Amino acid sequence: MESHKINIRVRYQETDAQGIVHHGNYLNYFEKARIEYLRAMGISYRDVEEAGLMLVVAQVEVNYFSPAYFDDLLLVETRVTSTKGAAIVHEYEITRDGDIVVKGTTRVGCLTERGKVTRVPKWLGGKGEFELPG
Amino acid sequence: MESHKINIRVRYQETDAQGIVHHGNYLNYFEKARIEYLRAMGISYRDVEEAGLMLVVAQVEVNYFSPAYFDDLLLVETRVTSTKGAAIVHEYEITRDGDIVVKGTTRVGCLTERGKVTRVPKWLGGKGEFELPG
Amino acid sequence: MESHKINIRVRYQETDAQGIVHHGNYLNYFEKARIEYLRAMGISYRDVEEAGLMLVVAQVEVNYFSPAYFDDLLLVETRVTSTKGAAIVHEYEITRDGDIVVKGTTRVGCLTERGKVTRVPKWLGGKGEFELPG
Amino acid sequence: MESHKINIRVRYQETDAQGIVHHGNYLNYFEKARIEYLRAMGISYRDVEEAGLMLVVAQVEVNYFSPAYFDDLLLVETRVTSTKGAAIVHEYEITRDGDIVVKGTTRVGCLTERGKVTRVPKWLGGKGEFELPG
Repeated sequence: MESHKINIRVRYQETDAQGIVHHGNYLNYFEKARIEYLRAMGISYRDVEEAGLMLVVAQVEVNYFSPAYFDDLLLVETRVTSTKGAAIVHEYEITRDGDIVVKGTTRVGCLTERGKVTRVPKWLGGKGEFELPG
Repeated sequence: MESHKINIRVRYQETDAQGIVHHGNYLNYFEKARIEYLRAMGISYRDVEEAGLMLVVAQVEVNYFSPAYFDDLLLVETRVTSTKGAAIVHEYEITRDGDIVVKGTTRVGCLTERGKVTRVPKWLGGKGEFELPG
Repeated sequence: MESHKINIRVRYQETDAQGIVHHGNYLNYFEKARIEYLRAMGISYRDVEEAGLMLVVAQVEVNYFSPAYFDDLLLVETRVTSTKGAAIVHEYEITRDGDIVVKGTTRVGCLTERGKVTRVPKWLGGKGEFELPG
Repeated sequence: MESHKINIRVRYQETDAQGIVHHGNYLNYFEKARIEYLRAMGISYRDVEEAGLMLVVAQVEVNYFSPAYFDDLLLVETRVTSTKGAAIVHEYEITRDGDIVVKGTTRVGCLTERGKVTRVPKWLGGKGEFELPG
Protein backbone atom coordinates (compact mmCIF):
# COMPACT_ATOMS: atom_id res chain seq x y z
CA MET A 1 0.00 0.00 0.00
CA GLU A 2 1.57 3.28 -1.13
CA SER A 3 -0.29 5.68 1.13
CA HIS A 4 -3.55 5.79 3.02
CA LYS A 5 -5.97 8.69 3.34
CA ILE A 6 -8.63 9.53 5.87
CA ASN A 7 -10.78 12.55 6.55
CA ILE A 8 -11.05 14.05 10.01
CA ARG A 9 -13.63 16.67 10.94
CA VAL A 10 -12.27 19.08 13.59
CA ARG A 11 -14.26 18.90 16.83
CA TYR A 12 -15.03 21.94 18.93
CA GLN A 13 -13.11 20.73 21.98
CA GLU A 14 -10.01 20.37 19.81
CA THR A 15 -9.83 24.14 19.37
CA ASP A 16 -8.24 26.51 21.86
CA ALA A 17 -8.57 30.17 22.82
CA GLN A 18 -6.47 31.19 19.82
CA GLY A 19 -9.50 30.04 17.81
CA ILE A 20 -7.52 27.26 16.09
CA VAL A 21 -6.90 23.55 16.56
CA HIS A 22 -4.62 23.16 19.59
CA HIS A 23 -1.26 21.90 18.34
CA GLY A 24 -1.31 18.81 20.56
CA ASN A 25 -4.35 17.35 18.80
CA TYR A 26 -2.43 16.56 15.64
CA LEU A 27 -0.77 13.67 17.49
CA ASN A 28 -4.24 12.24 18.02
CA TYR A 29 -5.02 12.68 14.32
CA PHE A 30 -1.79 10.85 13.45
CA GLU A 31 -2.75 8.05 15.82
CA LYS A 32 -6.18 7.72 14.27
CA ALA A 33 -4.55 7.67 10.83
CA ARG A 34 -2.21 4.81 11.87
CA ILE A 35 -5.13 2.80 13.21
CA GLU A 36 -7.22 3.30 10.08
CA TYR A 37 -4.17 2.47 7.94
CA LEU A 38 -3.94 -0.86 9.78
CA ARG A 39 -7.65 -1.45 9.32
CA ALA A 40 -7.27 -0.88 5.56
CA MET A 41 -4.61 -3.64 5.67
CA GLY A 42 -7.15 -5.92 7.32
CA ILE A 43 -5.71 -5.59 10.83
CA SER A 44 -7.56 -4.36 13.90
CA TYR A 45 -5.25 -2.67 16.37
CA ARG A 46 -7.46 -4.03 19.12
CA ASP A 47 -6.62 -7.56 17.96
CA VAL A 48 -2.93 -6.66 17.91
CA GLU A 49 -3.13 -5.56 21.54
CA GLU A 50 -5.26 -8.49 22.62
CA ALA A 51 -2.67 -10.78 21.04
CA GLY A 52 -0.04 -9.27 23.32
CA LEU A 53 1.80 -6.84 21.05
CA MET A 54 2.06 -3.15 21.89
CA LEU A 55 2.95 -0.42 19.44
CA VAL A 56 4.48 2.41 21.44
CA VAL A 57 5.34 5.87 20.13
CA ALA A 58 9.08 6.44 20.53
CA GLN A 59 9.51 9.68 18.58
CA VAL A 60 7.31 12.39 17.13
CA GLU A 61 8.08 15.37 14.96
CA VAL A 62 5.48 17.88 13.81
CA ASN A 63 5.85 20.91 11.57
CA TYR A 64 2.95 23.35 11.61
CA PHE A 65 2.34 25.26 8.38
CA SER A 66 -1.07 26.86 8.78
CA PRO A 67 -3.84 26.75 11.37
CA ALA A 68 -6.94 24.57 11.15
CA TYR A 69 -10.30 25.68 12.50
CA PHE A 70 -13.39 24.18 14.07
CA ASP A 71 -15.42 22.09 11.62
CA ASP A 72 -12.63 21.99 9.01
CA LEU A 73 -12.61 18.76 7.04
CA LEU A 74 -8.97 17.71 7.07
CA LEU A 75 -7.34 15.13 4.83
CA VAL A 76 -4.66 13.05 6.52
CA GLU A 77 -2.36 11.15 4.18
CA THR A 78 -0.11 8.53 5.78
CA ARG A 79 2.90 6.63 4.44
CA VAL A 80 5.11 3.99 5.98
CA THR A 81 8.61 5.14 5.09
CA SER A 82 10.67 2.57 6.98
CA THR A 83 10.23 -0.75 8.77
CA LYS A 84 13.48 -1.88 10.35
CA GLY A 85 14.12 -4.06 13.37
CA ALA A 86 11.58 -3.18 16.02
CA ALA A 87 10.44 0.18 14.58
CA ILE A 88 7.99 1.50 12.02
CA VAL A 89 8.30 5.06 10.71
CA HIS A 90 5.19 6.83 9.41
CA GLU A 91 5.00 10.16 7.62
CA TYR A 92 1.86 12.29 7.62
CA GLU A 93 0.65 15.20 5.59
CA ILE A 94 -2.50 16.98 6.70
CA THR A 95 -4.17 19.28 4.20
CA ARG A 96 -7.38 21.27 3.87
CA ASP A 97 -8.58 21.95 0.35
CA GLY A 98 -5.09 21.20 -0.91
CA ASP A 99 -3.30 23.57 1.48
CA ILE A 100 -0.78 22.07 3.86
CA VAL A 101 -1.74 22.38 7.51
CA VAL A 102 0.76 20.05 9.18
CA LYS A 103 3.48 17.57 8.28
CA GLY A 104 4.71 15.01 10.75
CA THR A 105 6.70 11.87 11.39
CA THR A 106 6.38 9.24 14.07
CA ARG A 107 8.57 6.29 15.00
CA VAL A 108 6.64 3.50 16.67
CA GLY A 109 8.33 0.63 18.48
CA CYS A 110 7.08 -2.95 18.89
CA LEU A 111 6.93 -4.29 22.42
CA THR A 112 5.58 -7.49 23.89
CA GLU A 113 2.99 -6.96 26.60
CA ARG A 114 5.81 -7.46 29.12
CA GLY A 115 7.59 -4.47 27.63
CA LYS A 116 10.32 -6.38 25.76
CA VAL A 117 11.41 -4.97 22.40
CA THR A 118 10.51 -7.32 19.56
CA ARG A 119 10.97 -7.21 15.78
CA VAL A 120 8.11 -5.83 13.70
CA PRO A 121 6.04 -8.90 12.74
CA LYS A 122 5.82 -10.03 9.11
CA TRP A 123 2.17 -9.02 8.79
CA LEU A 124 3.27 -5.43 9.54
CA GLY A 125 6.03 -5.50 6.95
CA GLY A 126 8.90 -6.61 9.23
CA LYS A 127 10.78 -9.83 9.89
CA GLY A 128 9.43 -10.74 13.34
CA GLU A 129 7.75 -14.06 14.08
CA PHE A 130 5.02 -12.72 16.37
CA GLU A 131 1.75 -14.22 15.17
CA LEU A 132 -1.69 -12.74 15.27
CA PRO A 133 -4.12 -15.43 16.48
CA GLY A 134 -7.18 -16.15 14.39
CA MET B 1 -13.24 15.67 56.99
CA GLU B 2 -15.89 18.28 56.24
CA SER B 3 -14.70 19.46 52.85
CA HIS B 4 -11.48 19.52 50.91
CA LYS B 5 -10.10 22.35 48.77
CA ILE B 6 -7.60 22.42 45.95
CA ASN B 7 -6.47 25.04 43.50
CA ILE B 8 -6.34 24.32 39.77
CA ARG B 9 -4.65 26.64 37.29
CA VAL B 10 -6.44 26.56 33.89
CA ARG B 11 -4.18 25.25 31.12
CA TYR B 12 -4.20 26.65 27.61
CA GLN B 13 -5.32 23.40 25.98
CA GLU B 14 -8.35 23.35 28.28
CA THR B 15 -9.76 26.43 26.55
CA ASP B 16 -11.75 26.34 23.33
CA ALA B 17 -12.51 28.71 20.47
CA GLN B 18 -15.13 30.50 22.59
CA GLY B 19 -12.11 31.69 24.57
CA ILE B 20 -13.26 29.91 27.73
CA VAL B 21 -12.62 26.60 29.49
CA HIS B 22 -14.33 23.90 27.46
CA HIS B 23 -17.23 22.56 29.52
CA GLY B 24 -15.96 18.97 29.42
CA ASN B 25 -12.81 19.81 31.37
CA TYR B 26 -14.68 20.35 34.61
CA LEU B 27 -15.15 16.58 34.86
CA ASN B 28 -11.36 16.30 34.88
CA TYR B 29 -11.14 18.94 37.59
CA PHE B 30 -13.69 17.02 39.66
CA GLU B 31 -11.65 13.84 39.19
CA LYS B 32 -8.46 15.56 40.29
CA ALA B 33 -10.34 16.91 43.31
CA ARG B 34 -11.53 13.41 44.30
CA ILE B 35 -8.00 12.04 44.04
CA GLU B 36 -6.50 14.86 46.13
CA TYR B 37 -9.33 14.43 48.64
CA LEU B 38 -8.29 10.78 49.02
CA ARG B 39 -4.65 11.78 49.36
CA ALA B 40 -5.59 14.18 52.16
CA MET B 41 -7.19 11.16 53.88
CA GLY B 42 -3.89 9.32 53.53
CA ILE B 43 -5.01 7.14 50.62
CA SER B 44 -3.36 6.97 47.21
CA TYR B 45 -5.83 6.14 44.47
CA ARG B 46 -3.02 4.26 42.75
CA ASP B 47 -2.80 1.94 45.75
CA VAL B 48 -6.57 1.47 45.67
CA GLU B 49 -6.37 0.36 42.03
CA GLU B 50 -3.31 -1.80 42.57
CA ALA B 51 -5.18 -3.50 45.42
CA GLY B 52 -7.90 -4.47 42.97
CA LEU B 53 -10.64 -1.94 43.66
CA MET B 54 -11.98 0.35 40.93
CA LEU B 55 -13.95 3.52 41.53
CA VAL B 56 -16.10 4.07 38.46
CA VAL B 57 -18.14 7.17 37.67
CA ALA B 58 -21.80 6.20 37.41
CA GLN B 59 -23.45 9.62 37.24
CA VAL B 60 -22.38 13.21 36.69
CA GLU B 61 -24.28 16.46 36.90
CA VAL B 62 -22.75 19.84 36.18
CA ASN B 63 -24.29 23.31 36.38
CA TYR B 64 -22.34 26.07 34.66
CA PHE B 65 -22.70 29.53 36.20
CA SER B 66 -19.96 31.63 34.63
CA PRO B 67 -17.04 31.00 32.28
CA ALA B 68 -13.46 30.43 33.37
CA TYR B 69 -10.51 31.58 31.30
CA PHE B 70 -6.94 30.56 30.53
CA ASP B 71 -4.63 30.98 33.51
CA ASP B 72 -7.47 31.47 36.00
CA LEU B 73 -6.67 30.09 39.41
CA LEU B 74 -9.76 28.11 40.36
CA LEU B 75 -10.71 26.87 43.80
CA VAL B 76 -12.41 23.47 43.84
CA GLU B 77 -14.19 22.59 47.07
CA THR B 78 -15.32 18.98 47.43
CA ARG B 79 -17.67 17.32 49.91
CA VAL B 80 -18.78 13.72 50.34
CA THR B 81 -22.52 13.98 50.78
CA SER B 82 -23.44 10.30 50.88
CA THR B 83 -21.78 6.90 51.23
CA LYS B 84 -24.32 4.11 50.86
CA GLY B 85 -23.91 0.55 49.67
CA ALA B 86 -21.53 0.57 46.73
CA ALA B 87 -21.70 4.29 45.94
CA ILE B 88 -20.06 7.53 47.07
CA VAL B 89 -21.62 10.87 46.18
CA HIS B 90 -19.39 13.95 45.95
CA GLU B 91 -20.46 17.57 45.53
CA TYR B 92 -18.17 20.19 44.03
CA GLU B 93 -18.17 23.94 43.95
CA ILE B 94 -15.67 25.69 41.72
CA THR B 95 -15.08 29.38 42.32
CA ARG B 96 -12.72 32.12 41.16
CA ASP B 97 -12.17 34.99 43.57
CA GLY B 98 -15.34 34.00 45.36
CA ASP B 99 -17.53 33.91 42.25
CA ILE B 100 -19.19 30.61 41.39
CA VAL B 101 -18.04 29.12 38.11
CA VAL B 102 -19.47 25.61 38.29
CA LYS B 103 -21.33 23.35 40.69
CA GLY B 104 -21.41 19.61 40.23
CA THR B 105 -22.23 16.22 41.65
CA THR B 106 -20.81 12.80 40.88
CA ARG B 107 -21.84 9.34 41.98
CA VAL B 108 -18.95 6.88 41.96
CA GLY B 109 -19.45 3.14 42.27
CA CYS B 110 -17.08 0.58 43.78
CA LEU B 111 -16.16 -2.39 41.63
CA THR B 112 -13.71 -5.22 42.06
CA GLU B 113 -11.18 -5.48 39.27
CA ARG B 114 -13.41 -8.18 37.76
CA GLY B 115 -16.18 -5.64 37.51
CA LYS B 116 -18.34 -6.93 40.38
CA VAL B 117 -20.17 -4.32 42.47
CA THR B 118 -18.84 -4.25 46.03
CA ARG B 119 -19.70 -2.19 49.12
CA VAL B 120 -17.67 0.94 49.79
CA PRO B 121 -14.82 -0.20 52.08
CA LYS B 122 -14.63 1.03 55.66
CA TRP B 123 -11.56 3.15 55.01
CA LEU B 124 -13.66 5.12 52.50
CA GLY B 125 -16.49 5.62 54.95
CA GLY B 126 -18.61 2.60 53.98
CA LYS B 127 -19.29 -0.84 55.41
CA GLY B 128 -17.38 -3.02 52.95
CA GLU B 129 -14.67 -5.45 54.03
CA PHE B 130 -12.27 -4.84 51.12
CA GLU B 131 -8.85 -4.28 52.62
CA LEU B 132 -6.07 -2.09 51.35
CA PRO B 133 -2.79 -4.04 51.64
CA GLY B 134 0.10 -2.44 53.46
CA MET C 1 -36.85 16.03 12.80
CA GLU C 2 -37.64 13.39 15.40
CA SER C 3 -34.14 12.28 16.30
CA HIS C 4 -30.72 12.29 14.71
CA LYS C 5 -28.13 9.51 14.71
CA ILE C 6 -24.39 9.51 14.21
CA ASN C 7 -21.67 6.93 14.63
CA ILE C 8 -18.53 7.69 16.58
CA ARG C 9 -15.48 5.42 16.54
CA VAL C 10 -13.66 5.51 19.91
CA ARG C 11 -10.13 6.89 19.59
CA TYR C 12 -7.19 5.54 21.56
CA GLN C 13 -6.51 8.77 23.42
CA GLU C 14 -10.12 8.74 24.66
CA THR C 15 -9.41 5.66 26.77
CA ASP C 16 -7.84 5.75 30.22
CA ALA C 17 -5.83 3.39 32.42
CA GLN C 18 -9.02 1.53 33.40
CA GLY C 19 -8.97 0.36 29.78
CA ILE C 20 -12.27 2.09 28.99
CA VAL C 21 -13.44 5.40 27.50
CA HIS C 22 -12.73 8.09 30.08
CA HIS C 23 -16.09 9.37 31.36
CA GLY C 24 -15.37 12.98 30.39
CA ASN C 25 -15.22 12.18 26.68
CA TYR C 26 -18.96 11.57 26.42
CA LEU C 27 -19.49 15.33 26.70
CA ASN C 28 -17.41 15.68 23.56
CA TYR C 29 -19.48 13.01 21.83
CA PHE C 30 -22.66 14.88 22.83
CA GLU C 31 -21.18 18.09 21.42
CA LYS C 32 -20.29 16.42 18.14
CA ALA C 33 -23.83 15.00 18.01
CA ARG C 34 -25.38 18.47 18.48
CA ILE C 35 -23.21 19.89 15.71
CA GLU C 36 -24.07 17.09 13.29
CA TYR C 37 -27.72 17.43 14.23
CA LEU C 38 -27.53 21.09 13.20
CA ARG C 39 -25.77 20.16 9.97
CA ALA C 40 -28.57 17.71 9.16
CA MET C 41 -30.96 20.69 9.56
CA GLY C 42 -28.88 22.61 7.03
CA ILE C 43 -27.10 24.78 9.60
CA SER C 44 -23.35 25.01 10.12
CA TYR C 45 -22.47 25.83 13.71
CA ARG C 46 -19.51 27.76 12.38
CA ASP C 47 -21.91 30.06 10.54
CA VAL C 48 -23.95 30.47 13.71
CA GLU C 49 -20.84 31.62 15.59
CA GLU C 50 -19.61 33.83 12.79
CA ALA C 51 -23.02 35.47 12.77
CA GLY C 52 -22.54 36.40 16.41
CA LEU C 53 -24.60 33.81 18.27
CA MET C 54 -23.06 31.52 20.87
CA LEU C 55 -24.58 28.32 22.14
CA VAL C 56 -23.22 27.77 25.63
CA VAL C 57 -23.65 24.64 27.72
CA ALA C 58 -25.48 25.55 30.94
CA GLN C 59 -26.20 22.10 32.37
CA VAL C 60 -25.09 18.54 31.74
CA GLU C 61 -26.25 15.26 33.18
CA VAL C 62 -24.75 11.90 32.27
CA ASN C 63 -25.68 8.43 33.40
CA TYR C 64 -23.14 5.70 32.70
CA PHE C 65 -24.57 2.22 32.11
CA SER C 66 -21.70 0.18 30.69
CA PRO C 67 -18.13 0.90 29.59
CA ALA C 68 -17.06 1.52 26.01
CA TYR C 69 -13.67 0.43 24.70
CA PHE C 70 -11.07 1.54 22.18
CA ASP C 71 -12.26 1.13 18.58
CA ASP C 72 -15.89 0.55 19.56
CA LEU C 73 -18.32 1.91 17.01
CA LEU C 74 -20.85 3.83 19.07
CA LEU C 75 -24.25 5.02 17.96
CA VAL C 76 -25.29 8.40 19.37
CA GLU C 77 -28.99 9.21 19.08
CA THR C 78 -29.98 12.80 19.84
CA ARG C 79 -33.37 14.39 20.44
CA VAL C 80 -34.42 17.96 21.14
CA THR C 81 -36.86 17.63 24.02
CA SER C 82 -37.52 21.30 24.76
CA THR C 83 -36.94 24.72 23.23
CA LYS C 84 -38.11 27.46 25.56
CA GLY C 85 -36.92 31.04 25.92
CA ALA C 86 -33.17 31.10 25.56
CA ALA C 87 -32.53 27.38 26.10
CA ILE C 88 -32.51 24.16 24.10
CA VAL C 89 -32.59 20.79 25.85
CA HIS C 90 -31.10 17.76 24.10
CA GLU C 91 -31.28 14.13 25.18
CA TYR C 92 -28.72 11.58 24.10
CA GLU C 93 -28.58 7.82 24.10
CA ILE C 94 -25.31 6.14 23.25
CA THR C 95 -25.41 2.45 22.39
CA ARG C 96 -23.09 -0.22 21.05
CA ASP C 97 -24.73 -3.12 19.23
CA GLY C 98 -28.00 -2.19 20.88
CA ASP C 99 -26.65 -2.11 24.43
CA ILE C 100 -26.90 1.15 26.32
CA VAL C 101 -23.56 2.71 27.18
CA VAL C 102 -24.58 6.18 28.31
CA LYS C 103 -27.65 8.39 28.54
CA GLY C 104 -27.37 12.11 28.91
CA THR C 105 -29.06 15.48 28.84
CA THR C 106 -27.70 18.94 28.11
CA ARG C 107 -29.25 22.36 28.39
CA VAL C 108 -27.67 24.88 26.01
CA GLY C 109 -28.27 28.61 26.30
CA CYS C 110 -28.26 31.19 23.51
CA LEU C 111 -26.00 34.19 23.98
CA THR C 112 -25.05 37.06 21.73
CA GLU C 113 -21.31 37.40 21.18
CA ARG C 114 -21.36 40.07 23.90
CA GLY C 115 -22.65 37.47 26.33
CA LYS C 116 -26.24 38.69 26.53
CA VAL C 117 -28.95 36.04 26.85
CA THR C 118 -31.17 35.96 23.76
CA ARG C 119 -34.17 33.87 22.74
CA VAL C 120 -33.55 30.75 20.65
CA PRO C 121 -33.90 31.91 17.03
CA LYS C 122 -36.75 30.66 14.87
CA TRP C 123 -34.45 28.60 12.65
CA LEU C 124 -33.51 26.62 15.77
CA GLY C 125 -37.12 26.05 16.77
CA GLY C 126 -37.52 29.03 19.07
CA LYS C 127 -39.15 32.44 18.88
CA GLY C 128 -36.08 34.67 18.67
CA GLU C 129 -35.51 37.13 15.85
CA PHE C 130 -31.76 36.61 15.48
CA GLU C 131 -31.08 36.10 11.79
CA LEU C 132 -28.45 33.95 10.17
CA PRO C 133 -26.88 35.94 7.31
CA GLY C 134 -26.76 34.39 3.87
CA MET D 1 17.62 32.53 33.70
CA GLU D 2 19.49 29.30 33.00
CA SER D 3 16.63 26.83 33.24
CA HIS D 4 13.24 26.64 34.89
CA LYS D 5 11.70 23.68 36.69
CA ILE D 6 8.11 22.76 37.49
CA ASN D 7 6.42 19.70 38.87
CA ILE D 8 3.40 18.17 37.16
CA ARG D 9 1.26 15.49 38.77
CA VAL D 10 -0.15 13.08 36.13
CA ARG D 11 -3.96 13.20 35.97
CA TYR D 12 -6.08 10.13 35.42
CA GLN D 13 -7.56 11.34 32.14
CA GLU D 14 -4.04 11.77 30.77
CA THR D 15 -3.50 8.01 30.83
CA ASP D 16 -4.65 5.65 28.10
CA ALA D 17 -5.57 1.98 27.82
CA GLN D 18 -1.87 1.02 27.73
CA GLY D 19 -1.92 2.16 31.37
CA ILE D 20 0.56 4.97 30.70
CA VAL D 21 0.44 8.69 29.97
CA HIS D 22 -0.81 9.09 26.40
CA HIS D 23 2.07 10.43 24.31
CA GLY D 24 0.15 13.49 23.15
CA ASN D 25 -0.12 14.91 26.67
CA TYR D 26 3.56 15.78 26.84
CA LEU D 27 2.89 18.67 24.46
CA ASN D 28 0.51 20.03 27.07
CA TYR D 29 3.15 19.60 29.76
CA PHE D 30 5.64 21.51 27.58
CA GLU D 31 3.09 24.28 27.10
CA LYS D 32 2.45 24.54 30.82
CA ALA D 33 6.23 24.65 31.37
CA ARG D 34 6.60 27.55 28.87
CA ILE D 35 3.84 29.51 30.58
CA GLU D 36 5.29 28.99 34.07
CA TYR D 37 8.73 29.89 32.72
CA LEU D 38 7.27 33.21 31.54
CA ARG D 39 5.58 33.74 34.90
CA ALA D 40 8.93 33.21 36.65
CA MET D 41 10.27 36.01 34.41
CA GLY D 42 7.44 38.23 35.63
CA ILE D 43 5.33 37.90 32.49
CA SER D 44 1.77 36.60 32.31
CA TYR D 45 1.04 34.92 28.98
CA ARG D 46 -2.50 36.21 29.29
CA ASP D 47 -1.16 39.76 29.29
CA VAL D 48 0.95 38.95 26.24
CA GLU D 49 -2.15 37.79 24.38
CA GLU D 50 -4.30 40.65 25.57
CA ALA D 51 -1.59 43.02 24.32
CA GLY D 52 -2.00 41.55 20.85
CA LEU D 53 0.95 39.18 20.56
CA MET D 54 0.48 35.48 19.85
CA LEU D 55 3.08 32.80 20.45
CA VAL D 56 2.33 29.99 18.02
CA VAL D 57 3.94 26.55 18.00
CA ALA D 58 5.71 26.05 14.66
CA GLN D 59 7.62 22.84 15.33
CA VAL D 60 7.65 20.10 17.95
CA GLU D 61 9.94 17.16 18.48
CA VAL D 62 9.49 14.62 21.27
CA ASN D 63 11.63 11.62 22.18
CA TYR D 64 10.03 9.13 24.53
CA PHE D 65 12.42 7.24 26.83
CA SER D 66 10.23 5.57 29.41
CA PRO D 67 6.52 5.60 30.28
CA ALA D 68 4.95 7.72 33.00
CA TYR D 69 1.97 6.55 35.02
CA PHE D 70 -1.09 7.96 36.74
CA ASP D 71 -0.21 10.02 39.82
CA ASP D 72 3.51 10.21 38.96
CA LEU D 73 5.09 13.46 40.06
CA LEU D 74 7.08 14.58 37.03
CA LEU D 75 9.80 17.20 36.95
CA VAL D 76 9.84 19.33 33.79
CA GLU D 77 13.03 21.29 33.19
CA THR D 78 12.90 23.93 30.46
CA ARG D 79 15.67 25.90 28.74
CA VAL D 80 15.55 28.57 26.04
CA THR D 81 18.27 27.49 23.62
CA SER D 82 17.77 30.09 20.90
CA THR D 83 15.98 33.37 20.30
CA LYS D 84 16.44 34.55 16.73
CA GLY D 85 14.24 36.72 14.56
CA ALA D 86 10.65 35.75 15.20
CA ALA D 87 11.28 32.40 16.89
CA ILE D 88 12.08 31.05 20.35
CA VAL D 89 13.41 27.52 20.78
CA HIS D 90 12.80 25.70 24.06
CA GLU D 91 14.24 22.39 25.18
CA TYR D 92 12.54 20.21 27.78
CA GLU D 93 13.60 17.28 29.88
CA ILE D 94 10.97 15.43 31.85
CA THR D 95 12.16 13.13 34.61
CA ARG D 96 10.69 11.08 37.45
CA ASP D 97 12.97 10.42 40.40
CA GLY D 98 15.92 11.24 38.19
CA ASP D 99 14.98 8.88 35.35
CA ILE D 100 14.37 10.41 31.95
CA VAL D 101 10.81 10.05 30.72
CA VAL D 102 10.77 12.40 27.74
CA LYS D 103 12.98 14.94 26.01
CA GLY D 104 11.57 17.51 23.64
CA THR D 105 12.09 20.66 21.66
CA THR D 106 9.62 23.26 20.46
CA ARG D 107 10.01 26.23 18.15
CA VAL D 108 7.49 28.98 18.86
CA GLY D 109 6.89 31.86 16.48
CA CYS D 110 5.77 35.40 17.33
CA LEU D 111 2.73 36.71 15.51
CA THR D 112 0.69 39.85 15.85
CA GLU D 113 -2.97 39.23 16.50
CA ARG D 114 -3.54 39.78 12.76
CA GLY D 115 -1.23 36.83 12.09
CA LYS D 116 1.79 38.81 10.86
CA VAL D 117 5.21 37.47 11.82
CA THR D 118 7.03 39.83 14.16
CA ARG D 119 10.43 39.78 15.87
CA VAL D 120 10.60 38.36 19.39
CA PRO D 121 10.21 41.39 21.69
CA LYS D 122 13.08 42.54 23.88
CA TRP D 123 11.35 41.48 27.09
CA LEU D 124 11.40 37.90 25.73
CA GLY D 125 15.08 38.05 24.86
CA GLY D 126 14.76 39.19 21.23
CA LYS D 127 15.17 42.43 19.33
CA GLY D 128 11.55 43.28 18.56
CA GLU D 129 9.94 46.56 19.59
CA PHE D 130 6.56 45.16 20.56
CA GLU D 131 5.69 46.59 23.95
CA LEU D 132 3.73 45.04 26.77
CA PRO D 133 1.35 47.67 28.16
CA GLY D 134 1.44 48.33 31.87
